[in-house]
Amino acid sequence: MKKVQVYITLKQGVLDPQGKAIQTSLHSLDYPEVEDVRVGKYIELQVEDGPELEKRVTQMCEQLLANPVIEDYRIELEEARSL
Amino acid sequence: MKKVQVYITLKQGVLDPQGKAIQTSLHSLDYPEVEDVRVGKYIELQVEDGPELEKRVTQMCEQLLANPVIEDYRIELEEARSL
Repeated sequence: MKKVQVYITLKQGVLDPQGKAIQTSLHSLDYPEVEDVRVGKYIELQVEDGPELEKRVTQMCEQLLANPVIEDYRIELEEARSL
Repeated sequence: MKKVQVYITLKQGVLDPQGKAIQTSLHSLDYPEVEDVRVGKYIELQVEDGPELEKRVTQMCEQLLANPVIEDYRIELEEARSL
């Protein structure tokens, strides 16, 4: 079993209304030092290990997990502790 | 300026319907090897550096970014490239 971590972020230049809303809220909570906020997804997959694991996870990102038009993704493989 | 990365994940034992939905979709896309999916948030903050930076970001997590009842959070500080 492998633990795979996928980080999905909006591409540079893509407007992030959720990030803007969080930034405004942080300012109203008296955190003026926050200059920018970008919100993305962090997905943890437990996947049966296999010879083409990274290739298959890349396909999962391209097909479902990320929107290639506006999002970038980054994959990290980690040895999973036995469940 | 400092780039701060915040990882927010559901606590162990908290049901993750979004993760279950993604897992079902991956199975229907012919990725049976996926045993479990957990979805969280990945937030990138650009913050003016200061003596209490980590403490302040922890407060931001406790007050707004994470729901302490059902979510865990992890903070990573990174030297930000000048914008």
